[in-house]
Amino acid sequence: MAISPGATLLELRERKPLVHQITNYVVMNETANATLALGALPVMAHAPQEVEEMAAVAGALVLNIGTLSEPWVDAMLLAGRAAAGPIVLDPVGAGATRYRTETARRLLDELDVTVVRGNAAEIAALAGQNAEIRGVESIRTESSAADLAREAAGVLGAVVSVTGPTDHVSDGERVIAISNGHELLATVSGTGCMSTAVTGSFLAAKPAEPLEAAAEALAAFGVAGEDAARDARGPGTFHANLYDALYNLDPESLDGHARIEE
Amino acid sequence: MAISPGATLLELRERKPLVHQITNYVVMNETANATLALGALPVMAHAPQEVEEMAAVAGALVLNIGTLSEPWVDAMLLAGRAAAGPIVLDPVGAGATRYRTETARRLLDELDVTVVRGNAAEIAALAGQNAEIRGVESIRTESSAADLAREAAGVLGAVVSVTGPTDHVSDGERVIAISNGHELLATVSGTGCMSTAVTGSFLAAKPAEPLEAAAEALAAFGVAGEDAARDARGPGTFHANLYDALYNLDPESLDGHARIEE
Amino acid sequence: MAISPGATLLELRERKPLVHQITNYVVMNETANATLALGALPVMAHAPQEVEEMAAVAGALVLNIGTLSEPWVDAMLLAGRAAAGPIVLDPVGAGATRYRTETARRLLDELDVTVVRGNAAEIAALAGQNAEIRGVESIRTESSAADLAREAAGVLGAVVSVTGPTDHVSDGERVIAISNGHELLATVSGTGCMSTAVTGSFLAAKPAEPLEAAAEALAAFGVAGEDAARDARGPGTFHANLYDALYNLDPESLDGHARIEE
Repeated sequence: MAISPGATLLELRERKPLVHQITNYVVMNETANATLALGALPVMAHAPQEVEEMAAVAGALVLNIGTLSEPWVDAMLLAGRAAAGPIVLDPVGAGATRYRTETARRLLDELDVTVVRGNAAEIAALAGQNAEIRGVESIRTESSAADLAREAAGVLGAVVSVTGPTDHVSDGERVIAISNGHELLATVSGTGCMSTAVTGSFLAAKPAEPLEAAAEALAAFGVAGEDAARDARGPGTFHANLYDALYNLDPESLDGHARIEE
Repeated sequence: MAISPGATLLELRERKPLVHQITNYVVMNETANATLALGALPVMAHAPQEVEEMAAVAGALVLNIGTLSEPWVDAMLLAGRAAAGPIVLDPVGAGATRYRTETARRLLDELDVTVVRGNAAEIAALAGQNAEIRGVESIRTESSAADLAREAAGVLGAVVSVTGPTDHVSDGERVIAISNGHELLATVSGTGCMSTAVTGSFLAAKPAEPLEAAAEALAAFGVAGEDAARDARGPGTFHANLYDALYNLDPESLDGHARIEE
Repeated sequence: MAISPGATLLELRERKPLVHQITNYVVMNETANATLALGALPVMAHAPQEVEEMAAVAGALVLNIGTLSEPWVDAMLLAGRAAAGPIVLDPVGAGATRYRTETARRLLDELDVTVVRGNAAEIAALAGQNAEIRGVESIRTESSAADLAREAAGVLGAVVSVTGPTDHVSDGERVIAISNGHELLATVSGTGCMSTAVTGSFLAAKPAEPLEAAAEALAAFGVAGEDAARDARGPGTFHANLYDALYNLDPESLDGHARIEE
């Protein structure tokens, strides 16, 4: 199938899929608003009494370990087992502490994760390579991002999205590179988490083709980042503009702005 | 008593009531900022060790089940029993999962709730009517909103505010319709929760007349939404403008912009 | 050593210290974004499984009791004992409930806290003076802020920053007054918490001189507040501008805008 962020965005806005997110406290509002601005319906729920019911009716499930603790990990496992749609995992801070690395691996072991979206350090930590990590905003690895995406996809048994100045998405064989985005994205906390929520939203609209959907999501989010930067004066105005830009993404012209190479 | 959003807003800004909120993780910052921009004092506290002490000195207590779990439900019950002022309940997602519906009903059974503020699907789920719900942002019901508000108020034994394109507030007999607001409100997560916090703030300023205060709150919030939309380019700039608009609401001219019918 | 917010900001941006924050749900996104906009790296982590590991590698640890509960207090104690760098405590709401006052005192007793940053009511409550408190946004005390800072520093055995229209920072002997800032800061929830996060960031850049670093942090944050107010139309646009202003703080010209007196 052809890669077309615009066509998938159009589909997403018609379906308005419910995207169930069990995510970190820092970015809940941000990922909910990014999902909603894009055209999908976010729902946050983490209680063991309801996560299975919610995950079973959602178009996608997004798991994010940015501020994890045991009750939340338990909720992720319950929801993940009950999920009707694709599961997207954001292993925030994997490699920064043993608990995060082990929890991300446990979620990958016990659940049928469709896409893992992280920065190079997080993906390298999960895939077993050496990586230095300084906080959740930092990126350092020893391998090129394209190779890392391909190898990690093989090791982890999922589509892997390695985001950075250029994003790389791989299913272990194919590697798709996306060079949209803007450096101001790195100045706002949670833009990585937002790109994961957008990935979940695109997967809900195109569940049969996770590699393509994941790449399209990053292109769409990157184009929104470029649009948002246009009259931004710093991270605060950029952040507000980013929701405007997601909302105003035009399915007709989106493919023309996407820089996707395979 | 006459309905006058402007007079109650003036009273609120003079009293600066403390509004104790036990709410969901997604919107805590947003409802605190809406409360503060309006002119009241928000305080968030959920620990069993302190909720009774806080609720006993607050001018109003706002309960919101948007990301509920057992410790939070327990805190809501403790706070609700100790509350000195009116209690406002936001049954976010009632009807979406059994846990949410049952928890909202339990809070209504065990506490003396003054106002319930929700969308039509949530209120219908609580009042026992058939409702289809798709996420917390979606509205589908089988009954007209005015009838729903009146019937639900009777069933639930509280003032009920059903918000939507037109809001309806009822005490089971009278129904007040408010047609302020703007469609961009539906593009930002948590604006419903904000309207609940604003309802709590107005009730704290006019506790003896909950029906009027609840209607005035929705008119004031709706006017702020209209003001915020004026130069917004999408959900992000609208969201920032919304706090400006709440802060800049003018008690003198507010009644002239309110569209309230009984 | 000379007091120079500009020099310390330059050092901070070169070092990019990791600032570990165990803070309240309301402001997590805000303090993370303020830290990141300033040039440091925020990380939020509260699980007992990982706080010691995180605190041991962070340049500073920021503890904030704005929405405390027992598991979070336990995490603060674990992290505080393992912290490699300075600890900054924000006793949000101390004096408002016994639980908050006692928890803040417990953290001060059991940990080696370097700086306490609060408003006059909170600091007075901790230092044992009479204080009336109405919510976490309100300030009322019986003592002048400069005397309060000096006395509290002596009683609490830490540098104390009392923020208000004029900020006062003391180590029990010296008192430094900072008169930067803008009244719009009081209209946005969490700006006090942000100033604490900025204090932690400056301490991470200049750990050997906590009195100076704490004063410089408040001057830098105050100048950013002044910059943010310039074209703000209310709390919402001010809030967005504030991150822009922190990001655009110029180390070269900052000292010229700082109003610091000793």
